Amino acid sequence: MKKIAVVAFGGNALLRGNEIGTIEQQEQHTLETCEKLVGLLRQGFELVITHGNGPQVGNILLRNEAGYNQFKIPKMPLDICVADSQGGIGYMIDRQMRNALSKTELSKNVIALITEVLVDISDPAFNNPTKPIGPYYLKEEAELLAKANNWVFKEDPRKRGWRKVVASPKPIDIINKQVVADLVEKGHIVIAAGGGGIPVYFHEDTKYLEAIEAVIDKDLASALLARAINADRFYIVTDVPKVFINFNKPNQKAVDHLTVDEAKKYFDEGEFPAGSMGPKILAAVDFVEHTGKEAVITREEDIEKEDCGTRIIKC
Amino acid sequence: MKKIAVVAFGGNALLRGNEIGTIEQQEQHTLETCEKLVGLLRQGFELVITHGNGPQVGNILLRNEAGYNQFKIPKMPLDICVADSQGGIGYMIDRQMRNALSKTELSKNVIALITEVLVDISDPAFNNPTKPIGPYYLKEEAELLAKANNWVFKEDPRKRGWRKVVASPKPIDIINKQVVADLVEKGHIVIAAGGGGIPVYFHEDTKYLEAIEAVIDKDLASALLARAINADRFYIVTDVPKVFINFNKPNQKAVDHLTVDEAKKYFDEGEFPAGSMGPKILAAVDFVEHTGKEAVITREEDIEKEDCGTRIIKC
Repeated sequence: MKKIAVVAFGGNALLRGNEIGTIEQQEQHTLETCEKLVGLLRQGFELVITHGNGPQVGNILLRNEAGYNQFKIPKMPLDICVADSQGGIGYMIDRQMRNALSKTELSKNVIALITEVLVDISDPAFNNPTKPIGPYYLKEEAELLAKANNWVFKEDPRKRGWRKVVASPKPIDIINKQVVADLVEKGHIVIAAGGGGIPVYFHEDTKYLEAIEAVIDKDLASALLARAINADRFYIVTDVPKVFINFNKPNQKAVDHLTVDEAKKYFDEGEFPAGSMGPKILAAVDFVEHTGKEAVITREEDIEKEDCGTRIIKC
Repeated sequence: MKKIAVVAFGGNALLRGNEIGTIEQQEQHTLETCEKLVGLLRQGFELVITHGNGPQVGNILLRNEAGYNQFKIPKMPLDICVADSQGGIGYMIDRQMRNALSKTELSKNVIALITEVLVDISDPAFNNPTKPIGPYYLKEEAELLAKANNWVFKEDPRKRGWRKVVASPKPIDIINKQVVADLVEKGHIVIAAGGGGIPVYFHEDTKYLEAIEAVIDKDLASALLARAINADRFYIVTDVPKVFINFNKPNQKAVDHLTVDEAKKYFDEGEFPAGSMGPKILAAVDFVEHTGKEAVITREEDIEKEDCGTRIIKC
């Protein structure tokens, strides 16, 4: 029996927030990330890699704006921009994973897939868009754009301007889960569900899969993929070594284990903020509750250590 | 035994040269293209779809320029732009192929792969770059850029300005041919080798796969993929119904069959121009010579007809 690990990286594993994100920086970070994953292969895991795309799709959206402004090139909608980012990031991980493997005795194919993720068009999230995308606008510009296009804008919490916000609906199915399962079964390393996947919905009248402007949380999409392919372990990679209770307070405490019930209790008590640890805890709980297997929240540097990070367990 | 067809579309199958290329136009063309492919499924073929990316990667390169000019977003190199285009186009074909299938009783997974293609860094093509990419420049700008970056520029034949040209090396291996073969074996429809693939080469010192600025002919890459997965038929889709001899002359003649020897003779006599039918003939000949199977050059509207287009046969 094959042991399968799904590893969810943030977009920051490739492009750091404090860098401008040249190709050299991205390639170097990607190679380092992939070298760490060799440790999981040595533990006998088949690997599925998922990744964020925040900084990359942000840049693609800005180029879209600028390309229209300077050359009148038609702007592409968000679904195409996410698909583009899956292509570019998937390729980068694919090639650097091969390069990391080339320094070992391990021989594996690596393949990046374009992944659509089904959402429910009646998801209540569509009534309350929260995910900022694209450029910053002045208040007056935002108001005009909102009116003209029926868009929603919110002010940036750090007061850098106003940004369009889109819904973040719950992922309900990974369109190509069977393909991922088939490739893992063959022993290939699979890169999938980049940026939480390209959101699509089933149109009741046309019976077509249609695009919808939204952003799916990448950790939730990764948890769903991990469940769908019967993964044995689900890693969520972040930039802290463990989950903390009382984070950034004098009595902060790193935890080695959390049961699903403990994780839910702390979540309800507001221990995990919405923009950072919150979605990771929810994704880990989702996986563990449905599978009884273990989820691990850890940082990249530690992933190859057997007892790394915080383990979320059934009970 | 499964029968496999590889079908190579031009980027124009999705985005027509005489249109500005809105997303609505591209989605509609893609759906029509996919509906035609259902005919090949009904003939019992497993399908691998390859595609061009000329108009799309052209737009991505211009957005790259404009994004740097307006927002100082780092420009991405050509390999990332090609990977992005594989993502966006692959996704569009994937979703519309599913939609085309939804009107039939056929049930198939469809999957778009990011594909790297190996080239030889000592390919003589690198000494004679021919493929124009990116924006048009004034002669003076082109000269400055050429000097500063060691780039080569050529004047556009239609005098629209000067463009950077890159090499078009021969594809020598499809990096993920085994993955394509595994997926076809499982009965999935595979989209691969978009835009001729992302060119990579093997670096003798680092032993790494490295990126290289080049454009691989998509028909040659498709022929190589068709050979690698033991395809039974190789379709090259263009905008004329058949191959013509004496094309655009009073004595022009559409041909139903060409043997490899005839095709080579006509090619040597200059019947097939470099920018259009030439590479298609070479790709068809390459496939037929190596496999003994049949290649078909046809237009999209006819592809489902059993006797469509011009058949290139061994003898």
